[in-house]
Amino acid sequence: MHFTSEQHLDENVLERTFTLGDIPGILWTPASASPSAPVPLILLGHPPLGLGRMYPRLAGRARQAVADGFAAATIELPGSGDRPRWEAVEQARAELRRVLAAGEPVGDEIVDALVLPLVDRAVPEWRSALDALLELPGIRGPVGYSGGVISIGVRLALTEPRIAAAGLFAGSFVPRATFEEARRVTVPLHVLLQWDDEGNDRQASLDLFDAFGSPEKSLSANMGGHTGVPQYAGEDAGRFFTRHLK
Amino acid sequence: MHFTSEQHLDENVLERTFTLGDIPGILWTPASASPSAPVPLILLGHPPLGLGRMYPRLAGRARQAVADGFAAATIELPGSGDRPRWEAVEQARAELRRVLAAGEPVGDEIVDALVLPLVDRAVPEWRSALDALLELPGIRGPVGYSGGVISIGVRLALTEPRIAAAGLFAGSFVPRATFEEARRVTVPLHVLLQWDDEGNDRQASLDLFDAFGSPEKSLSANMGGHTGVPQYAGEDAGRFFTRHLK
Repeated sequence: MHFTSEQHLDENVLERTFTLGDIPGILWTPASASPSAPVPLILLGHPPLGLGRMYPRLAGRARQAVADGFAAATIELPGSGDRPRWEAVEQARAELRRVLAAGEPVGDEIVDALVLPLVDRAVPEWRSALDALLELPGIRGPVGYSGGVISIGVRLALTEPRIAAAGLFAGSFVPRATFEEARRVTVPLHVLLQWDDEGNDRQASLDLFDAFGSPEKSLSANMGGHTGVPQYAGEDAGRFFTRHLK
Repeated sequence: MHFTSEQHLDENVLERTFTLGDIPGILWTPASASPSAPVPLILLGHPPLGLGRMYPRLAGRARQAVADGFAAATIELPGSGDRPRWEAVEQARAELRRVLAAGEPVGDEIVDALVLPLVDRAVPEWRSALDALLELPGIRGPVGYSGGVISIGVRLALTEPRIAAAGLFAGSFVPRATFEEARRVTVPLHVLLQWDDEGNDRQASLDLFDAFGSPEKSLSANMGGHTGVPQYAGEDAGRFFTRHLK
């Protein structure tokens, strides 16, 4: 892991970009974090739109996490941003656009082709990033995963024992395989669902919430469209992580 | 309104029982409430099981409301507790028990007979109680309604302009008429749904949440069975009222 830039977003938040092999990432830490007072880490998930395009929203969520006493980190997804173009996923996206434009239903095959390769490749990368991040002074486990792609969050919650809590954003297509994995997830979950998000399959999100095996799971459904999570809902999610990571 | 007893639950909470005509009720106020520092009021709704049986849960919710800086009050529902037996509603309840015991579906006619007369009679009583409560020194509007019967909460939110926010508990049968009223409700809503509450029709609760016309509405779904609302979900509901009544 090599840090490539460093700036203070304000007097309390240190933002550092890094590369892990050829994967770019961003780390946000409280200016007060130190080896003697390490803070738990929250991994910030996001859709595969590129870190550059996602930066404003990620930085907002990171500021909230740091204000709540956490470190936050994210990495570029495979095939996104400045990473090499990934032909198979590009084709799946093109097929999805074609189907949506034609008003056809989005079949399981398209969803599988769109999401499953991404999960298979991204999850080991997130785990490698976790290895590197937890070696830094001032950062400790347990670790939370926050956001989308929800199938990545589910796979991480199921397979990465350092993930102690997950705040998942129900806003992406859900392959059948994710439902099967969800049944075996046991960590505490806080699921955000934007109720009036037209691009989201609300019923699939509710079915997925129902499927989770976690004894503690909460669904917070709010208005405001895909990107309009109300501030109070974000604060509730922050309290969820505080309950489980501190 | 006549006060019939008074006790301090602890040094911060004054509990007074009262009668309003022949309707018994309970009022909880912060010991610090005064005419010069009045607090907003939250009406505590509950199922028609009698105030005596509901007292432990109501007192717990009242303590939370008072800790959050509110007064809280409730009244006995018609036909419940020590109030005169109400034959029509008793018959509807007997019919419901018969249908449930027989494993038959609960038809609209039964739900209507069970809930609508209760709403028609209870809502004017809640409004009269509100008149009396808001004349007391140390209590002011705006007012919140919190809890069930959800159809009573919907009717109050729709027809009583002093209700500025409603925290509704989705745990009771919902007549078709309530869906129609819900579409016209515009006050901010926070709906609690116990996801694994076997006695509750989850899909009806989700449909009702969808129907509400309120621009700000939030659904908080949690585990723990009908009476097992997690403490953090109760605290989130308290913050909802703080945002809207203070």
